[in-house]
Amino acid sequence: MSAIFKLSLFVLFVLSGICRAQHPRAFVTATELASVKAGLSKYPLLQSSYAEIKHQIDPLLGTTVDVPFPKDPAGGYTHDRHKSNYMILFHSGLLYQLTGDIRYATLAKQMFLQYADLNPRLPKHPQATSSSPGRLFWQALNDANWLVYAGMAFDLIQPVLTVAERNQIIQGALTPEVDYLTKDLQSWFDLIHNHGVWACAGVGISGIAADRKDWVDMALYGTSGKGTSGFLAQMQQLIAPDGYYTEGPYYVRYAILPYFLFANALQHDRPALQIFQYRSSILKKALYAGLQQTNLNGMFFSLNDALKNKDYTTNELVTAVDIAYARYGADTGLAFIGSRQQRVLLHPGGLALAADLARMKKLPTQYPYQTVEYRDGKEGTGGGVSFIRNGADKSLTTLIFKYSSHGLSHGHYDRLNINLFDRGNEILPDYGSARFIGIEQKYGGRYLPENKSYATQTIAHSTVVVDEKSHFNGIEDQAEAAHPQKLFSMVSKSSMQVVSAQEKAASPGVDMRRTVFMVRGSNYPQLLIDLFEVSAQTKHQYDFPIQYNGQFIQTNFPYQAATKAQTVMGAAFGYQHLWKEASATARQGQSSFTFLQDKRFYTIHQQTDSTDQIFFTRSGAGDPNFNLRRETSMITRRNAQQTLFFQIVEMHGDFDPVAEFSKDAYGKVSEMRTLQQNASYTVVSFNYGGQVWVVAKVNQTQQVSQQHRIEINNQFWQWQGAAAIWVDGKPIQ
Amino acid sequence: MSAIFKLSLFVLFVLSGICRAQHPRAFVTATELASVKAGLSKYPLLQSSYAEIKHQIDPLLGTTVDVPFPKDPAGGYTHDRHKSNYMILFHSGLLYQLTGDIRYATLAKQMFLQYADLNPRLPKHPQATSSSPGRLFWQALNDANWLVYAGMAFDLIQPVLTVAERNQIIQGALTPEVDYLTKDLQSWFDLIHNHGVWACAGVGISGIAADRKDWVDMALYGTSGKGTSGFLAQMQQLIAPDGYYTEGPYYVRYAILPYFLFANALQHDRPALQIFQYRSSILKKALYAGLQQTNLNGMFFSLNDALKNKDYTTNELVTAVDIAYARYGADTGLAFIGSRQQRVLLHPGGLALAADLARMKKLPTQYPYQTVEYRDGKEGTGGGVSFIRNGADKSLTTLIFKYSSHGLSHGHYDRLNINLFDRGNEILPDYGSARFIGIEQKYGGRYLPENKSYATQTIAHSTVVVDEKSHFNGIEDQAEAAHPQKLFSMVSKSSMQVVSAQEKAASPGVDMRRTVFMVRGSNYPQLLIDLFEVSAQTKHQYDFPIQYNGQFIQTNFPYQAATKAQTVMGAAFGYQHLWKEASATARQGQSSFTFLQDKRFYTIHQQTDSTDQIFFTRSGAGDPNFNLRRETSMITRRNAQQTLFFQIVEMHGDFDPVAEFSKDAYGKVSEMRTLQQNASYTVVSFNYGGQVWVVAKVNQTQQVSQQHRIEINNQFWQWQGAAAIWVDGKPIQ
Repeated sequence: MSAIFKLSLFVLFVLSGICRAQHPRAFVTATELASVKAGLSKYPLLQSSYAEIKHQIDPLLGTTVDVPFPKDPAGGYTHDRHKSNYMILFHSGLLYQLTGDIRYATLAKQMFLQYADLNPRLPKHPQATSSSPGRLFWQALNDANWLVYAGMAFDLIQPVLTVAERNQIIQGALTPEVDYLTKDLQSWFDLIHNHGVWACAGVGISGIAADRKDWVDMALYGTSGKGTSGFLAQMQQLIAPDGYYTEGPYYVRYAILPYFLFANALQHDRPALQIFQYRSSILKKALYAGLQQTNLNGMFFSLNDALKNKDYTTNELVTAVDIAYARYGADTGLAFIGSRQQRVLLHPGGLALAADLARMKKLPTQYPYQTVEYRDGKEGTGGGVSFIRNGADKSLTTLIFKYSSHGLSHGHYDRLNINLFDRGNEILPDYGSARFIGIEQKYGGRYLPENKSYATQTIAHSTVVVDEKSHFNGIEDQAEAAHPQKLFSMVSKSSMQVVSAQEKAASPGVDMRRTVFMVRGSNYPQLLIDLFEVSAQTKHQYDFPIQYNGQFIQTNFPYQAATKAQTVMGAAFGYQHLWKEASATARQGQSSFTFLQDKRFYTIHQQTDSTDQIFFTRSGAGDPNFNLRRETSMITRRNAQQTLFFQIVEMHGDFDPVAEFSKDAYGKVSEMRTLQQNASYTVVSFNYGGQVWVVAKVNQTQQVSQQHRIEINNQFWQWQGAAAIWVDGKPIQ
Repeated sequence: MSAIFKLSLFVLFVLSGICRAQHPRAFVTATELASVKAGLSKYPLLQSSYAEIKHQIDPLLGTTVDVPFPKDPAGGYTHDRHKSNYMILFHSGLLYQLTGDIRYATLAKQMFLQYADLNPRLPKHPQATSSSPGRLFWQALNDANWLVYAGMAFDLIQPVLTVAERNQIIQGALTPEVDYLTKDLQSWFDLIHNHGVWACAGVGISGIAADRKDWVDMALYGTSGKGTSGFLAQMQQLIAPDGYYTEGPYYVRYAILPYFLFANALQHDRPALQIFQYRSSILKKALYAGLQQTNLNGMFFSLNDALKNKDYTTNELVTAVDIAYARYGADTGLAFIGSRQQRVLLHPGGLALAADLARMKKLPTQYPYQTVEYRDGKEGTGGGVSFIRNGADKSLTTLIFKYSSHGLSHGHYDRLNINLFDRGNEILPDYGSARFIGIEQKYGGRYLPENKSYATQTIAHSTVVVDEKSHFNGIEDQAEAAHPQKLFSMVSKSSMQVVSAQEKAASPGVDMRRTVFMVRGSNYPQLLIDLFEVSAQTKHQYDFPIQYNGQFIQTNFPYQAATKAQTVMGAAFGYQHLWKEASATARQGQSSFTFLQDKRFYTIHQQTDSTDQIFFTRSGAGDPNFNLRRETSMITRRNAQQTLFFQIVEMHGDFDPVAEFSKDAYGKVSEMRTLQQNASYTVVSFNYGGQVWVVAKVNQTQQVSQQHRIEINNQFWQWQGAAAIWVDGKPIQ
């Protein structure tokens, strides 16, 4: 080796030492690690989380972890292997820093060197079917996942790497992936979408680890560097000012991780950005809004594309909750979630949370759920969603009223949809998405064809379908172009909460308004009063479906069940997926249907005419591969130009199958009437177990806060505000 | 009042005092009460159980409890009221004895006086539809329930009653009910059946409370006094020598209460009977056998007519477990059940159990479930049931193989049926009964018409149906007249357990034999190997249904799903209740079908020919009132004279929807072959992930314990005993 060459190597070494910032700093800094290390012996949850990781990694020490050539779709061997691998990389890196045991770093290094050999040779994944194919995985999104954790891992093991090894890993393992995502898939990388958040985080974190400022810039401001895309744009455009994430709760659960992990790294790398305070602490709002969008059991509500098996104990939420705990401060609600998660990050946030949990004598029994209303759209002008709640602890009831924007490619055609949860159970459910994630036999775990043909369609929801066509004819661009409008809401009194919204674009020429009242109190029964008003210039067929979940008990009208042959409800827009289990002529006056779920009775009462038809359906038709779950709905069909669907969902009674007792098994609502419906007011009434209930609302937005006085049948009703309910003449307070 | 009259009243009073035995003694004696009272302050579970009862009764003190004229069916107001009332009577009586507070006794007395006024006036219940109508309730069974508790209550409150009141209650409240059951319904009272057990207990306990020896005699020996019916006969004939109760686990749960409560009273009243030791302590055996017939979550298995919502925390089991604890001695298994029940009887048994629980530092994590085999029939010669278990704690697996007698009026036509439970989940389920107990809207809570037309029929089970006709053509008398025969069983090694049984009468001219192997071990996969052999003199259509519970994942054969119209499977014997969801031509060689339940995969492999047909069905056809649950089955149809249905149920893999991983999602069984099937031996083989498995069994009972040596394709196999399995030539040990 020549002296000159030796010298240049030396210079290179010194220079690389000078140019390199302090590492680690992507996930944790040396100072932070020292405090985490000190806490390990003190706080049980930190300790067990550490032990869990050690238990995962220790058996691998001294072995060679397979880094296979990618072949299989999601759920298959190579997919799951690479998925495991990035967590092994990250956890070995962490353990190396916490223990000083070089064997952990060596494990990660060896894997990285294998990736450095593999990644430059990778073609498009053989199973790629999406528009954003991956290389290590079938879709680029998973490659971005890999970069996020590989980036943090690389940052952690740098002390053991020679310069040559460091360069080899940067060049071989990281650069091909970064280049692929930002060049080959440039437009996908720049897209405002949860995939984009992951891609930015992956590229940005890898940039911080590899001292590649250009990567970090690209991650922050997009490939153009102008900030029209990139991480900051994702923070501006995907999250509404109140924290609602436009793709819905299932996807905020997914995006929250790269948001928080990249912000966490940026906090170390570019403190001047003050990323956690960015846009009035929008990440904090997104996390807290996400947590409010969960059921009593922690499951994220299934608006839009969503699987019903992700709760707040997932890795994504452990990550976000713990980082938030460090960056936004301690919070009892977060501590409660931490106690349910039963593990923490080996990070200052996890340390603080574990320390607080060790100190707390009594935990709250439940997350502090409350009525929340979120605006959608980056400016908060794209409609919204209301989560109306009453009842405490295990008897919590939640009505979801969705009048948000479409929700990008994961949106459903469900304007003005409602879902109802009671006592932790899904009573009026949302199908969610047709997908078996992680199950290779089911189309490689991808969205199934029935997701588009059924799950996203309007009839799979609980909102009006006009002329058997989905909202916006099921065309995403059209749905993205318009959004509903909230008309008013009054949610401060738990005895009566009301929200009203309007949709004018979903079915051309048809104006839809839905107003939902949630009533509950020691003097009141538990009712959802639902006024769905539809009007048009011409006559239409309106289908008013309500998805229900429970055992069919009884109707107050005769129906004809399909007993020897069953046919489908229609040919398109999801109707082809519904078996017609029974059909009926509605009862003149009122039709009521009772079902039972988990020891409680639910009765749907509707004001109907004998010209209305009612169908009971079950999904599963047009399903050649058994991809759909079998779920039930009741559909009321009415031909009209304008009409009001006046519906009450009564939650009542108790059934004790062990003691064989049932209490209040019958609904008590009768005599449903529309008293007035004009440009100014809609007024309905009904009888509840002998009480006369009158429900009124204004129909003009400017009237919302005014005083109102109307005369009906020689009786005067007066109130202030957008809506009111009287029980035997006395207003609900 | 004349002096003479006063005198005679006095004489009557004295005499009544003399003739009366010591009270209380039906439920507890004064001595026992003293010890329970002393324990109240010491043992938390006793204390909370006491508090619970006080909490129920205290608000009623000083009020008048309604004793309405009977009107409603089960689930209706008057039904539920009278049902509550008898527990109020009993609990007030107990509280009076434990506290000395006369207000409790007064509450019960006032109610009794109302019954004394009501009962003599009662006609047959207006809602009575059964052959044994009740008076207070729609069926006599509930009147018997009332007598059991009213009898014990009356026994407890005697100190506060005047002679006149005592007579008034005996004459007015008790006698009409006793007379009604024993005279008007004499043949029902004398029937050997769970209703009879209740009736005897009600009459007997009331007799002990009222010092009516004649009632007690009638209860013990039947109305004839000869002992051919009555309680002792019920103890002899309903329970097999090992403790199996012929009506099945759901009904032993129900009958166990009157058995134990009346025995408990007899222990005080007629100690010479030694009722708890009667028939080698048959009540103990019945209770322990009942507990073995529950799932991990405590639910009683749903053989025969059964609802899937009764577990070992019901009042019946609290009663039996606690009394057994006192009369048969302490037991860790019973203590575990007590800890799950979270309440005890205010009785020496409850006292002892609560005391033991307070002392125990660590409870077992589960009831000590084990493989158990029960003979059926009073002599133990009426077939039986095997509960084959492997795995520990939460990963327990249970195969139920039913070759019992019919099971009286609650039996199903399911000879040689199997059910499979894994990790607490029902994998190959039994529909149980079609009934919504306690729900008035569903036919008054009674058995629904679909119970007979579907739930009891053979096709609703997992056993062979010949020519689309149920076993015994669904005729109870014929089914009662014959029973299957156990051929052999070897269950001592958990790595391989095998049971074989034969049925010759269910389908005339058709001999059916089923042999089930359960395999599990650290070196073995978890398999159920099922050999169902059928032979006849002529050709038949054999349907081999398997009920499965889970999400359809994949088959290894193409099938045609009904996508636009669905038809029924047949016209009778339950087939009219099955929608044909898909049909297929079986694969030449082997047909496999995978489904997913609760994060685990299950694959059904069958050796098939391309002349076999396969159907996937769902219940719910022919169901005009939505009375049936929608459940799924796979049916293999084969036309043959004699055949072997060789089936393997492979339990495999893990699916983690949160981490989106699946492991071993594919079944590994292939190359299923029948190597030999003759009068002496049946030998099959298959490949499991590269291993060659050979399974052999003997076909002649006398060979069971012999040495065997057979030659197949120039290879010799030898073993001792009824059956053997070799993996790559090595026998499973």
